[in-house]
Amino acid sequence: MDSNRLEAFSDGVFAVAITLLALDLAIGGPGPHQPTLAAKLADHWPAFFAYAVSFATIGIIWVNHHTLCKNFSEIDRTLLFINLLLLFFVVCIPFATSTIAAYLRADGGQSSLAAVIYQGVLEGMSISFTLLFWWAISREHLRDPLTPDQARRATIRFGIGQAGYIIGIGIAFASAIASLALSGIVAIYHIFEQTPVRPKAPPDQGTPATPAT
Amino acid sequence: MDSNRLEAFSDGVFAVAITLLALDLAIGGPGPHQPTLAAKLADHWPAFFAYAVSFATIGIIWVNHHTLCKNFSEIDRTLLFINLLLLFFVVCIPFATSTIAAYLRADGGQSSLAAVIYQGVLEGMSISFTLLFWWAISREHLRDPLTPDQARRATIRFGIGQAGYIIGIGIAFASAIASLALSGIVAIYHIFEQTPVRPKAPPDQGTPATPAT
Amino acid sequence: MDSNRLEAFSDGVFAVAITLLALDLAIGGPGPHQPTLAAKLADHWPAFFAYAVSFATIGIIWVNHHTLCKNFSEIDRTLLFINLLLLFFVVCIPFATSTIAAYLRADGGQSSLAAVIYQGVLEGMSISFTLLFWWAISREHLRDPLTPDQARRATIRFGIGQAGYIIGIGIAFASAIASLALSGIVAIYHIFEQTPVRPKAPPDQGTPATPAT
Amino acid sequence: MDSNRLEAFSDGVFAVAITLLALDLAIGGPGPHQPTLAAKLADHWPAFFAYAVSFATIGIIWVNHHTLCKNFSEIDRTLLFINLLLLFFVVCIPFATSTIAAYLRADGGQSSLAAVIYQGVLEGMSISFTLLFWWAISREHLRDPLTPDQARRATIRFGIGQAGYIIGIGIAFASAIASLALSGIVAIYHIFEQTPVRPKAPPDQGTPATPAT
Repeated sequence: MDSNRLEAFSDGVFAVAITLLALDLAIGGPGPHQPTLAAKLADHWPAFFAYAVSFATIGIIWVNHHTLCKNFSEIDRTLLFINLLLLFFVVCIPFATSTIAAYLRADGGQSSLAAVIYQGVLEGMSISFTLLFWWAISREHLRDPLTPDQARRATIRFGIGQAGYIIGIGIAFASAIASLALSGIVAIYHIFEQTPVRPKAPPDQGTPATPAT
Repeated sequence: MDSNRLEAFSDGVFAVAITLLALDLAIGGPGPHQPTLAAKLADHWPAFFAYAVSFATIGIIWVNHHTLCKNFSEIDRTLLFINLLLLFFVVCIPFATSTIAAYLRADGGQSSLAAVIYQGVLEGMSISFTLLFWWAISREHLRDPLTPDQARRATIRFGIGQAGYIIGIGIAFASAIASLALSGIVAIYHIFEQTPVRPKAPPDQGTPATPAT
Repeated sequence: MDSNRLEAFSDGVFAVAITLLALDLAIGGPGPHQPTLAAKLADHWPAFFAYAVSFATIGIIWVNHHTLCKNFSEIDRTLLFINLLLLFFVVCIPFATSTIAAYLRADGGQSSLAAVIYQGVLEGMSISFTLLFWWAISREHLRDPLTPDQARRATIRFGIGQAGYIIGIGIAFASAIASLALSGIVAIYHIFEQTPVRPKAPPDQGTPATPAT
Repeated sequence: MDSNRLEAFSDGVFAVAITLLALDLAIGGPGPHQPTLAAKLADHWPAFFAYAVSFATIGIIWVNHHTLCKNFSEIDRTLLFINLLLLFFVVCIPFATSTIAAYLRADGGQSSLAAVIYQGVLEGMSISFTLLFWWAISREHLRDPLTPDQARRATIRFGIGQAGYIIGIGIAFASAIASLALSGIVAIYHIFEQTPVRPKAPPDQGTPATPAT
């Protein structure tokens, strides 16, 4: 199977990015003029909130990437570069997360700017994933090709996810917190809405489905 | 085999988290008003202690994860998300470790709070692992299914581990150091008590066991 | 296949290095005497510029490494050490990137020095990759050996890439920004110019090509 | 093959540790009271020196680990924990490296202490690797078992490597720089002296050797 190394490298990037997220949770040690640990933790809630949303987002894009890749029958050079574009945005997520965590309560439009950056990075990731998906189905690189109906439903589903991030950009101008919360809701939406690659073989098919791996 | 990529991503997260633990060992360079290296190292013992306990804990959960995963016959989407929940807590361990190391000797209940957070993260990890185990045995996703007796013994064993972390939360209010030490003991307990997945085929079986890989 | 672990380790290093690049994007939180987020981001453009160039460079060397490795029929100890030399330079890229980002606008020849270091690291990486390629073709370690004509064209192509970095060193003395931009152009050049390992079997061959994996 | 995941996790740890080494190369940005970049780089030579030695050391232990693991016919639980012990020391290397780099020129015995810690970590890593090797040959877990003569030669070779680190501890009290240089020499020694696992099948054997993977 040819997609092994694409997955290995991508998994490495996903794993490092998701683990680096937690570096921003760090709070300094105790000191003479420092607030107590409890006060620091309470004050630090934007970091925990942003961490949870970003963890869920990277986790879900990993699950969907996994579901898509194991259905690839062939990897061409264009696919590798679209995948790199996806990873470019994934690698930006820890930066976007620490920025929104630091500026979530800042005034003068700074929180909105941080939220716009955050949503922009997620939107970039989502568009890259959609490109990956489209390239795969348009070049018939899938082991279990989608029916036109499945492809249509998948496109609608991707559109909903991306619309979520675009609405998130709009909401960012009103409230950075609401915008970040929306990203959390989009993540939860993706948990229950599966990327429709590799459908189960319908029971009326007489021949056994192609083995998946 | 379908669990390859689940393992690859999980291994990546485990590997990054376990290696990031050591970042907190760092002590600053020499300087005009700095204590000597020996004094700094002696003063820095909570970081070394917390590092050793957390390394052992992540190491053991990795070994058990490895033992469980190689027995999975099928990975479904729910399993992927339970696994993400497990990784969520694993990724929190470097944060919890640096917090308890920094506050282990702080007063005013701060050390207890740090220890409660630490034990809470380990408890969350342990519960997630138990969920992973239960899901696998309840859906008959194991290549070598457990006998009811083995499943009962495994549940008891998981319970002991989790009870250890819950007791650790209780002890945290009396002594953060004792609580951290207890986590070290739980880790050592898990070294000698194996997750009972993939039992050896009993010698009285007439047919050869299913090959493991 | 013997190159599995060479690739797994290399992928790990590539993945960590490419993800660490983004750590330098971090900007501090808001504060009483701090400029606004927008001002900080605008002032921070060298970090974003250097990040984009370095991401593209590591991404492309990964794609080429992937293309080369999957054609290896045998890995010997020398190959492992040449690969380590390549990784030595890859690991240096986050350092070189943060240095050029910090000094891109510094005066007194400091920006030139930073750009020379940056180009030197990329040149070292490029030379190591060429060594890897030469060792593989000279020892006939390739599953699909190159024709002399293909090997010649490949050598010319590597030469162009390396010349780019050497010219980049020269340009660094005039303008660090132009030098960094040139590295970006070299990266884009490599996107469209493929490492010519594993050519497609010409259509006039009567026998099917050796399967790739 | 059963050693896949042991290798994947170990490779992850090796890859992260070797890449984190370079984080200590970072030098701050320019500033009003800062020395120039050239002066900073010149002053920073212990970090570059320590980085080179540690990179070579981790790189070589990875090559030897790779050579050993691919000959494992079976992984038992004890082997997993010996491997974790090895990784424990590998994960300590970035800490030991940054400490020796920071204190290489410090006085009052501090440089010696830093060098003793550094050599101690390398010695711990080396002993763990020898344990891994002994466990594998004593339990006959190797696919290509060693002849008694080969095992004896291997033991001598490991002994030379470990003696190097122990001498390094002794030299540390006289000169931390010489001690660090000795570790570099040990690394170079290991490049040319191969772990003698998986010998080539002698030509007089009538039956073909067991395939390696």
